Amino acid sequence: MDVLNRNNVTVSGPVDGRPVVFSHGFGCDQNMWRLVAPAFADDHRVVLFDHVGAGRSDPSAWQPQRYSSLAGYATDVLEILDELDLRDVVFVGHSVSAMIGVLAANRDPSRFGALVLVGPSPRYVDDGDYRGGFSAQDIEELLDSLDSNYLGWSATMAPAIMGNPGRPELGRELTESFCRADPDIARHFARVTFLSDNRADLARVSVPTLVLQCREDVIAAREVGEFVHRSVPGSELVVLDATGHCPNLSAPEETTKAIRGFLTGQGSTRP
Amino acid sequence: MDVLNRNNVTVSGPVDGRPVVFSHGFGCDQNMWRLVAPAFADDHRVVLFDHVGAGRSDPSAWQPQRYSSLAGYATDVLEILDELDLRDVVFVGHSVSAMIGVLAANRDPSRFGALVLVGPSPRYVDDGDYRGGFSAQDIEELLDSLDSNYLGWSATMAPAIMGNPGRPELGRELTESFCRADPDIARHFARVTFLSDNRADLARVSVPTLVLQCREDVIAAREVGEFVHRSVPGSELVVLDATGHCPNLSAPEETTKAIRGFLTGQGSTRP
Repeated sequence: MDVLNRNNVTVSGPVDGRPVVFSHGFGCDQNMWRLVAPAFADDHRVVLFDHVGAGRSDPSAWQPQRYSSLAGYATDVLEILDELDLRDVVFVGHSVSAMIGVLAANRDPSRFGALVLVGPSPRYVDDGDYRGGFSAQDIEELLDSLDSNYLGWSATMAPAIMGNPGRPELGRELTESFCRADPDIARHFARVTFLSDNRADLARVSVPTLVLQCREDVIAAREVGEFVHRSVPGSELVVLDATGHCPNLSAPEETTKAIRGFLTGQGSTRP
Repeated sequence: MDVLNRNNVTVSGPVDGRPVVFSHGFGCDQNMWRLVAPAFADDHRVVLFDHVGAGRSDPSAWQPQRYSSLAGYATDVLEILDELDLRDVVFVGHSVSAMIGVLAANRDPSRFGALVLVGPSPRYVDDGDYRGGFSAQDIEELLDSLDSNYLGWSATMAPAIMGNPGRPELGRELTESFCRADPDIARHFARVTFLSDNRADLARVSVPTLVLQCREDVIAAREVGEFVHRSVPGSELVVLDATGHCPNLSAPEETTKAIRGFLTGQGSTRP
């Protein structure tokens, strides 16, 4: 199996640079990092990839069973790191990829030097005192609506997620990205994303972690980011001035600065 | 001049009920209150209207000069209250109508018993230490984009403002409402809305005031609601669990409850 081809892995930057792996969220692909990744390519080994079912990943690699939980995506990440034999990896995961990174780092911490969780949510559905921001009914309606009309759903969902009404080109870009996705796979991935519960995994993280939270985010509210910060031992929380759920697109400089600040403060754990 | 016809004023509820006047925001009309207003009609005199240029207001009443600032809209509100001879009015203003209510109440406090400001912002553009949530460039781009393609702008702007990605029918409803508006008037009203600065008016409010702030709102961020609360003497702040900028549509019960709670706590100032 050609892992690099399966996940359309692209690598740039100096061979001896610290590896930074950027992982995209639902309805997106590695293109989502185009305004952030180049800022690391001078002094980092920059790795980009598309999750199976997204972007230019190998369509034949898609298996409903393997990708019926985030664990399958985490396996892919570990296979990429193994294949490239990367160590001391800075894994930057956006949205659902934040939890994919958590799962991967918990399974094999030896590969990871740092986690950067951009707009993470370990569980979208409210549960007792836990506030994920969505009732079970909200999520059910969201998934029903996706099932019945994927393009229509994307057209309102994406701008709401992007949450930068002053810059409609951003909402349009995310809408187009959503619309490029295969509806069947998107349906499947949405279920996995919005019904996951990874709260218990947070306490097991043993890697230095930065939580990047947007100031106003209707998908991953500030309380959720604070929950992740409280739950991941020793993690740092940075609340970006950016609004919406995609600071990698809407505020790439602020996002880059926060990640760089964290890495500088942390120092490399590389031997 | 027939003020009631000009503003398509509708009145319901008991004649001796305390008057509640609901005032809609940009790109909307009185329909925006359809899930909230009926909950007051048992025991309040409920007044709904459309701002000139919106809904079923009289198109011939539109004058660019009169409506070149929020003061013109405030004049209309006062004319409606005069025409109906209302006193001890609870004025509930959503979004830009919150500031319209502030201006009206400052000009003639004798008519007002309470102000309820739903998602208020006294200034959208950042200014020194003040954080309105938008840079001058953001707002310029927003207005340029509106000018060049109003329907396209509405299609991404409205779902972002609504900010309830789990309930796409809400984003769709607001999009349709925006799209019904006359593009020329919307363009004009957007400039007035997004370029206003009513910060200095807040300190002059002499009427009991409730600030209703959504938990996550990319148009009127929590900091902005807190600023309004700090600036309006003696005001109360309630942070709703609702997300997005339109709790009157997305969380009508919570909105109603918060307003009722405030009015009960306040007691009527009616003689």
